[in-house]
Amino acid sequence: MAQTRDPKHQLREICRTAARIFYDKGYDGASMQDIAEAVGLTKAGLYHHVGSKDRLLFEIMNYGMDILDETVISKVRRIAEPRERLRRTILGHIDLVVRTRDLEITVILHENRSLRGELRARINARKQEYIHLLEQMISEVQAQAVSPPAISPRLAAFALLGMINWLYQWYRPGGAVKEDELAEAYARFFFRGLLGS
Amino acid sequence: MAQTRDPKHQLREICRTAARIFYDKGYDGASMQDIAEAVGLTKAGLYHHVGSKDRLLFEIMNYGMDILDETVISKVRRIAEPRERLRRTILGHIDLVVRTRDLEITVILHENRSLRGELRARINARKQEYIHLLEQMISEVQAQAVSPPAISPRLAAFALLGMINWLYQWYRPGGAVKEDELAEAYARFFFRGLLGS
Repeated sequence: MAQTRDPKHQLREICRTAARIFYDKGYDGASMQDIAEAVGLTKAGLYHHVGSKDRLLFEIMNYGMDILDETVISKVRRIAEPRERLRRTILGHIDLVVRTRDLEITVILHENRSLRGELRARINARKQEYIHLLEQMISEVQAQAVSPPAISPRLAAFALLGMINWLYQWYRPGGAVKEDELAEAYARFFFRGLLGS
Repeated sequence: MAQTRDPKHQLREICRTAARIFYDKGYDGASMQDIAEAVGLTKAGLYHHVGSKDRLLFEIMNYGMDILDETVISKVRRIAEPRERLRRTILGHIDLVVRTRDLEITVILHENRSLRGELRARINARKQEYIHLLEQMISEVQAQAVSPPAISPRLAAFALLGMINWLYQWYRPGGAVKEDELAEAYARFFFRGLLGS
């Protein structure tokens, strides 16, 4: 690993490689030795950088939430129109899950239960913040609707998260369904469910 | 473990216990020794019953798919009205995922990638069969709609599976949202997404 990089960059590089190994072997099946070899550090060197295997998992998840913030949330905050803001959030979140190069996102989704205690509480707090944002956006969109809502903003937010997050289990880029087609169909379907039109 | 039971019953009892251990420790984190102790067999006795750890995971998933067949699919086949048939399938599938006593279902959902080769292909074939059934039911419901469909039956089936299967990640029975309320809201929302009303 190059020695000239700043610590944040270096941590992210470790996270990206470790995410691929956790993805391939599972959190319990991957050893710190596997990860140290893959990033070109000694095992002691890896522990020096990340503290512990738990902490490494936390850093990967934290990095994944940073990616969500940087590539989706910070961009949609500027959009004033509620429906367009929610639509852009849906398209951005789908893009994150289906682009296989962001395995940090898959690790967040799959290894949810592997993290314990305070580190888990910190990741859950970030997830809750995102869920609240979705709820708020959904509720603003519903306020514009003619028909009475079919579902509470909270349950609609979880339905949406389920539709999108589950993609990591079945969607394969380059398969029969193109990403654009998928994202547009999911967004259209979700808005119809919310608004009846 | 009682010696008087028939082999199928005994295998299911092993599956139920092993499912709980895989759920708690993850497939990679759980040992055959852990499982043997929990079911009251020697490790050799457990291997005699299930062949291998892979095979045990397969048996758990196969049992989970049997539960889906027995408690949901076989019952809805008798319903002639397409919308009611799909509604009953949605409510039944939700019930399976949220009832924590059916951890076989959670193991199917979470340990999807832990199974390899021919055993994985056999479980995937059973899953595909269920997806095709959902597609067919969705397409029959869409055929009754006035507005043009917002989504293909296949993507709608995956959206539905995502909404429901993701419940194992966040829904806690006995929490703020009652199971009936959740199931009715999800079904209403899904039909509105399909039909626009």
